[in-house]
Amino acid sequence: LTSPLRPWAIVDSREVFTLAPRVSISVDTVKLPDGRIIEDYCQIRTADHVVIYAETEENLLICLQQYRHGSRRVGLTLPAGNIEADEKPLESAKRELLEETGYGGGLWFDLGKYPVHGSQGVSTSHLFVVKGCAQVAEPNSGDLEEAIVELYTKDYVLTALRRNEFLVLSDAAAIGLAALHVFPPDDPVMK
Amino acid sequence: LTSPLRPWAIVDSREVFTLAPRVSISVDTVKLPDGRIIEDYCQIRTADHVVIYAETEENLLICLQQYRHGSRRVGLTLPAGNIEADEKPLESAKRELLEETGYGGGLWFDLGKYPVHGSQGVSTSHLFVVKGCAQVAEPNSGDLEEAIVELYTKDYVLTALRRNEFLVLSDAAAIGLAALHVFPPDDPVMK
Repeated sequence: LTSPLRPWAIVDSREVFTLAPRVSISVDTVKLPDGRIIEDYCQIRTADHVVIYAETEENLLICLQQYRHGSRRVGLTLPAGNIEADEKPLESAKRELLEETGYGGGLWFDLGKYPVHGSQGVSTSHLFVVKGCAQVAEPNSGDLEEAIVELYTKDYVLTALRRNEFLVLSDAAAIGLAALHVFPPDDPVMK
Repeated sequence: LTSPLRPWAIVDSREVFTLAPRVSISVDTVKLPDGRIIEDYCQIRTADHVVIYAETEENLLICLQQYRHGSRRVGLTLPAGNIEADEKPLESAKRELLEETGYGGGLWFDLGKYPVHGSQGVSTSHLFVVKGCAQVAEPNSGDLEEAIVELYTKDYVLTALRRNEFLVLSDAAAIGLAALHVFPPDDPVMK
């Protein structure tokens, strides 16, 4: 993408709050392309994470029923979790899927990566698809949230989206992008 | 959705940082259903916002090329913006589409609402589809970001997603959910 538009310049960045290792807030002084200076543009950092649209060999979607505190309710999510310091996103995705659901194997595809907030950034969601998973262990996530593994047909997933049963924006993004076949359908980039 | 799972209880909530009116951070003490107490569960609040998947009468998707500081780069986004204090989300969506692109009219559908972060919350994205828009004014957003209005075919949108040209998770979610026909296709809920 060539563009006549230019990025902003960061003139200064002051860290104003930290709750290590999860959350930090900085206030940037930025210079816009037209020369204007903005003194207080807030940037938020939390851990980057992976979200996995995982289908079984029977083409069922592997979901978790759980409570998420950011959503303040019980509902459906996709397997997901933070990227640890020494991990590549795909490694995190395989680890989280196994820990949270007990499923492994399959063919993996990359759905892209997106900051969750266009202004404040916050964290980057790395989205993956895996097809043809099989259960190889019992779930054992170690997360604060209790979770129930549930398998759904694509028809039910659509119904659940219409009922707003999915809890987080990244769930909607991964389900939608998987349906759009954003990944090369006959060419898994990662075995 | 009936569930054996229970929400967490918020025992205490301390506001630890505010950059009015845009950003506030609180640290919650929460009680899990199994009785465990977590003393430092961080919650982030920024403005709730709308994101609009808007098609013209020619079935082209109305995109903006712009820089977003949360993404640190120039790319494509959907029309979007914060919900003002006195607005309903649909009102915000119509206002933002008109301000940012000059387009109006059409049939509106609700794609659902999602917190952008499952743990920290951060803000809620209200996603809409509008079909059959027409240009009725010149764009005049008043935003800090310069923006170029660009119309794309669905084939190009898929290519752009594969190239990771879209900047924000809510763009991917709205495009994916629109393709899935999450809204009732023959029954606009809002004229």
